[in-house]
This record gives sequence, structure tokens and C-alpha cells, in this order.
Amino acid sequence: MTLSIAHLGPPGTYAEQAAVFYANWLKQTTGVEATLCPYPSIAQSLQAIAEGQTKLAVVPVENSIEGSVTMTMDTLWLLDSLRIQLALVLPITHTLISCATSLESIKTVYSHPQALAQCQGWLGRFLPTVQLIPSNSTTEALQLLKPDITSAAIASMRAAELYNLPILATAINDHPENCTRFWVVSQAQTENSHHTSSTNTTHTSLAFSLPANLPGALVKPLQIFAQLGINLSRIESRPTKRSLGEYLFFIDLEADANTLKMQSALAELSSYTEILKIFGSYNILPIAT
Amino acid sequence: MTLSIAHLGPPGTYAEQAAVFYANWLKQTTGVEATLCPYPSIAQSLQAIAEGQTKLAVVPVENSIEGSVTMTMDTLWLLDSLRIQLALVLPITHTLISCATSLESIKTVYSHPQALAQCQGWLGRFLPTVQLIPSNSTTEALQLLKPDITSAAIASMRAAELYNLPILATAINDHPENCTRFWVVSQAQTENSHHTSSTNTTHTSLAFSLPANLPGALVKPLQIFAQLGINLSRIESRPTKRSLGEYLFFIDLEADANTLKMQSALAELSSYTEILKIFGSYNILPIAT
Repeated sequence: MTLSIAHLGPPGTYAEQAAVFYANWLKQTTGVEATLCPYPSIAQSLQAIAEGQTKLAVVPVENSIEGSVTMTMDTLWLLDSLRIQLALVLPITHTLISCATSLESIKTVYSHPQALAQCQGWLGRFLPTVQLIPSNSTTEALQLLKPDITSAAIASMRAAELYNLPILATAINDHPENCTRFWVVSQAQTENSHHTSSTNTTHTSLAFSLPANLPGALVKPLQIFAQLGINLSRIESRPTKRSLGEYLFFIDLEADANTLKMQSALAELSSYTEILKIFGSYNILPIAT
Repeated sequence: MTLSIAHLGPPGTYAEQAAVFYANWLKQTTGVEATLCPYPSIAQSLQAIAEGQTKLAVVPVENSIEGSVTMTMDTLWLLDSLRIQLALVLPITHTLISCATSLESIKTVYSHPQALAQCQGWLGRFLPTVQLIPSNSTTEALQLLKPDITSAAIASMRAAELYNLPILATAINDHPENCTRFWVVSQAQTENSHHTSSTNTTHTSLAFSLPANLPGALVKPLQIFAQLGINLSRIESRPTKRSLGEYLFFIDLEADANTLKMQSALAELSSYTEILKIFGSYNILPIAT
């Protein structure tokens, strides 16, 4: 049996790195072989599962410096049929890739906007006058990179090795504690036999809208969990896209949705919400690099 | 007396459109003349005030479709000395600009990633196979645009007129209710004599971190405002950039910070927070286009 896993491509992105780790881990723990399927966007990676093209997708959720990946949250809310199976935490180390032999000759740096933002302090210090050119992914930046001494790209060390390109500087991210959390997502009806038992996970993610546009009404839903001693590890708001000032709320809780306490909290929560979507319960697996 | 106003440039961006509106409004209501100063990034627009290069800056805060502008929030938190004077709400209408006479010949579309995202439904329907190329601003996309029938850019109608470029399709954004909120920001010590009296504004914005990493502790701060009947019109979390799972909270309240009720709420709030920064009280001015 072979499992197909969608991820943001082309090969060499951090999403692919997380997917490769997951595929190896799956093989070691269950013997199941997986093939990776690169897609041009995060939305298309998730749609691939919804449309049955792949069994799973590995998508970025949140970076410790740049915050939430809004495309993942918005797509998960739109596509009803998906379920989170596992979270992965990948340490991020950005590398400056260039045919130049010193920084002086570099005039242009290509990378994904999030990677450029995560290195802005380093760039301001060592390359203050270069032009920064955004790309759709860190790997695409390598495709834009010219084989001369005036251009450079920011991507992972794995990408430099994969495409056989020279590394000019490593660990150029401003915050050494930089890491990105990914979710492994499947269709809702898929049995989660690979790695989650039914009441033994540490986290649950959900999102809801509130009936009237009364943001003060957010206190009630949060109180339910606080009173039951269920810790909230993250809260994010996203626009409903109906009008400015109307929001959806995305919440991560430190509990399994199948426990009695959470069942009662979720039942109470649904009495305050307009639409409530539970994305699943899962464990977190750190990726050693 | 001439006031200088920093904004994301070059001329033709939506930030410039908001700054032009504000400059005209200021002239009409106070007689004060303003000059606009374009900067290459939002962070640099705000730093311009902090460093005394300009008196004011007009920066985007939030779009009704794409959500918060994280660069504005992160920079405001870092630069202690800034104060919000006024909010502006600009309706956004995206325009497809191209020398092509029909959609069939277009192979490439340039724009800022937020504008591309806001037109993704239209692009999927009418230009499903084109390559989307991100740029640093909608105006920069016009500079990348080639004078042939294979390329197009997404920007405002004002930008098309400013640079004398042909419009191929108008109102191509997926949501007609698309609008962006901007803040007019000054240095903290500037008297806000132009447009705010001391206790007559409708909104207050602030941000805080919590002492321990106990996100359940967010309930208390929200309860203070709920119990006093002060409506919360927005809540956003941003990473502290220390480690994954630690957040700052940005809150907009529907009240003036100088009222007795708010003074008491803010005093109580400060007993729960680690760092509390109050960005100012202000009114909201809709921009008619």
C-alpha cells in the first residue's frame, strides 16, 4: 500500500522537508510507503485531498516569527471534509545561496516574502543596499537565481544540496529560535489508524463564527474552557470576508476532543456559536534536523 | 506650515490613495498643506516618523478579505513612540491593466501577493493558466509590466491613470465589499489638535503580552471590558518572536481611552499584563471614492 502526500512544491521547500520527515517516520513506525506530490500552492495541496487526488497533505500552520499562515486557515474553513491527524514542528535555518564568493558583489536577493522578512535584520546589516525580489516559494527563488556574482537567494540548506548550488552564508535568520508548525491533514472519513488512538491526543483545533457581530461575545466561549481548566494554546481571528470587522476565530486547545470534559465544553460552545467546525485532535511531533 | 506624510510608495499604491485623501481632507478642514513622502516599505514609513523625517504616516492595518497587515502591527509594537490619530476606510477596487485587447493572449499577471489573493477566484475563472508573479507593491507590478499583449498587472484605477496605462477589466476582486482600514500615525508627543478632541473619539487600540505563557489567562483581560460594557471590535494575536506558542494580543475597543470607564478598565488591565502599550484613541473616517 502506498500513501500519496500533497505539499507546497517544488521539491526543496520547507513544506517538502516536513513531508519527507513524515514519510520516513510513517515508514519506520508502520511500514507504509508514501509518495510525495508537489502542488503550486497551499490551497491546492489541501484541495488535492478534498478531491481525492492524494490521501494526505502536509501544510504550514504557523511560524514562530511571522505568525499564522492565513491561506491554510482560510482553506481549512472552506473545505468542510478535512481532518488534522498530526502536527509537526520543523526548526527553520535560512541559507544564503549564491555563485558569488563574497557579499560585496551581490545586488539582488530572491526569496519567499516570509523568508525575506525572517532575515530582514541580517540583510539590513550585511546587504543594506540590495534589491529584495519576492517569489512564490523559497525553491522558486532558486529558479530565479542567476549563475553570476550579483544575485543570491534565501532557501534551506536542503534545497541548496538538492539543486547543487553553492552556499555563501548559513543561519542568516534573525531569530535562532525560528520554527514552523505543520499539520498533516486527511479526509474526515479516513480512519486515523496510523498514529492516533481515539482518546490519547494532546491538542484539538477548531474554528467558529459568532451569531451577531458582537465581538464582546468572544468572552463566553473562552470562559467555557477556562472554567474547565482546558488550556487555550492559540487564538487567531480571520475576516469572514463579508464585511470589515466580522471575524472567524480559530482556537487550539490542549485536550483531546473525545474526553468527557471536552465533549461537555464543545456542547456548551456550540450554543454560543453560529458555525462551529472541529478540525480534529492530534499529537505534536518535533522534527530533529 | 507644511506637514509631511510618509506612505508605502511609489505613487499609485492604495496607501498613497489613502494619504492623498487624508491630505485633501486636512486642507479642507484645517487649511494645513501636506506633502507626501513615499517609502519602500510599511516599516520604513513608520520609522520615518520615529526618526523625525516626517510628521505623520498613513499605513494599512487590515483588509476585509486578507485580514491584518502584520508588518504594521509588529512595527508599531517595536517603535514605542508612536500614536494613532485617525482611522481611514478605503474601498478597494482592483483593475486589470494590460496592453492586450483580450484576455486570451495573457500569459503572466504581476501584482502584490495580497492583490493576487483578493482576485484569485476571478483569475481562476478567466485566466486559469497564467503565471502569477508577486511584486513588492501594486505600483511595482506596473513597473514590471511589459508593453506587449502577453502580460498584465493588477493595481488600482488611480494607478492606471497616473501611469497612463490601458485598463482591460475593472472590479475584478472576488468580494465587492473589499475595503482596507488605514491608520494615520504621529509621534506620541505631537498634540493631536488637527482632528481629535481629548475625550471625543470612538476607538482605542492597544496591545499587551501576558506574564506567564498561559494563554488561558486571556479570559481575564477580555472580561474586564465585557463587564464594563466596552465592546471589543477586533482581537489579533502575533508571535512574541521568542518561541512558538507565545503571543502578543492586539485589541481595538469601541471607547475613548480618556473616559472614566476606560481609565478604570485600563488600570485593571495593567495588573494582568506583562507589557501594555496603548497606541491611542481616534475616530474612523470613511473614504468616498
